[in-house]
Amino acid sequence: MFDYPTLSPQGITEQSFETIRRELSAANIILPSDTAPIVERMIHSTADFDFATITRFSTGAVQAGIHALGNGCAIITDVNMIRMGINASRVQQQGGTLHCFVADDDVRQRAAETGHTRSALGIRMAWEQGLLQDSIVVVGNAPTALFEIIRLMLEKEVRPALVIGVPVGFINVVESKEAFMKTTVVPWIVTQGRKGGSAVAVAIVNALLRLATGTRATETD
Amino acid sequence: MFDYPTLSPQGITEQSFETIRRELSAANIILPSDTAPIVERMIHSTADFDFATITRFSTGAVQAGIHALGNGCAIITDVNMIRMGINASRVQQQGGTLHCFVADDDVRQRAAETGHTRSALGIRMAWEQGLLQDSIVVVGNAPTALFEIIRLMLEKEVRPALVIGVPVGFINVVESKEAFMKTTVVPWIVTQGRKGGSAVAVAIVNALLRLATGTRATETD
Repeated sequence: MFDYPTLSPQGITEQSFETIRRELSAANIILPSDTAPIVERMIHSTADFDFATITRFSTGAVQAGIHALGNGCAIITDVNMIRMGINASRVQQQGGTLHCFVADDDVRQRAAETGHTRSALGIRMAWEQGLLQDSIVVVGNAPTALFEIIRLMLEKEVRPALVIGVPVGFINVVESKEAFMKTTVVPWIVTQGRKGGSAVAVAIVNALLRLATGTRATETD
Repeated sequence: MFDYPTLSPQGITEQSFETIRRELSAANIILPSDTAPIVERMIHSTADFDFATITRFSTGAVQAGIHALGNGCAIITDVNMIRMGINASRVQQQGGTLHCFVADDDVRQRAAETGHTRSALGIRMAWEQGLLQDSIVVVGNAPTALFEIIRLMLEKEVRPALVIGVPVGFINVVESKEAFMKTTVVPWIVTQGRKGGSAVAVAIVNALLRLATGTRATETD
């Protein structure tokens, strides 16, 4: 009989966070107490300590996120993988909703007609449906989705409660994040540089959901 | 009117891969031609060049994956986020199927009763349903899911066509991968060390699907 190490999910998470904190401390990295629960979760989801130094928060971004989630805000994601990774039962517990329009038939058709990306048009559709105001917008893949949010803020005066801007990649990604941080009038969490992605985006939202619902950091999703 | 850079999705992908190849070359990293399309996609999804050096393939693993996908094999994932990220229309095109049992009611109940992880019990349920033989099993999160595959290979003589073992994290993750590479009797793709995750797992499967369906590497999902 093959036996393998079994630890309670809580035990695994506790030991993981102890390891992360020990290694951050050994690297002389001190995280502010409000942003630490978010950044530690990002490292937990990637085993990549770069996120300790490249993750930027606008002043009050964590509190803005907790407040919006506690009020049952809409959460709009650029891709379905992120929607799927977010803890839906904690969202519902707060009366919130989850949306992603990237695979919507209308979005597909408009993308084929206009040459815009489906991700950007998915964000536009969320705006058309009146979902963006006071929402949390999560961009983990498409820089064009982040550019579209800038456009909607500038031209339509829409104001999400928080924008999580962590697209990943090599083309237009760095530019989209820099443009966003320069022009935005709403709270934001951004990973500077090329790194980011779906797993990172999900880690941020689920960490905020833990804080909003008073769930211990070591509780599994 | 706010204008932002628009490039065709193909154009973005082409430029991204040019950048990745240029930087690999500058770092004197030469990828074998059979595994390069997989590793380049992993870097594309993470902007993390570590995957060029930590990704290990058993001999013939890429061909085994292409062959299984071309035969319309079942794909079993440890978490739903990975199932959601895999290009379902390319899977269906080959007559294949996608499965994840982690959120199954039966699995939840057994986990509560036994203290095993839901991820490991999800893999066990796939075996009970006769899905594991000749399948592709994708583990992007839970080391216990990888340990469960070892157990099923040893005790039940089940033989997946390919195991993608890329769990991420700090506790039991490295150990699960080392144990798997030592004991396995089936083809595998593994990221050595702590790194891996859902986005990495999805990148590997979608790269194999591109090869199996004769889709150009720069075509978007």
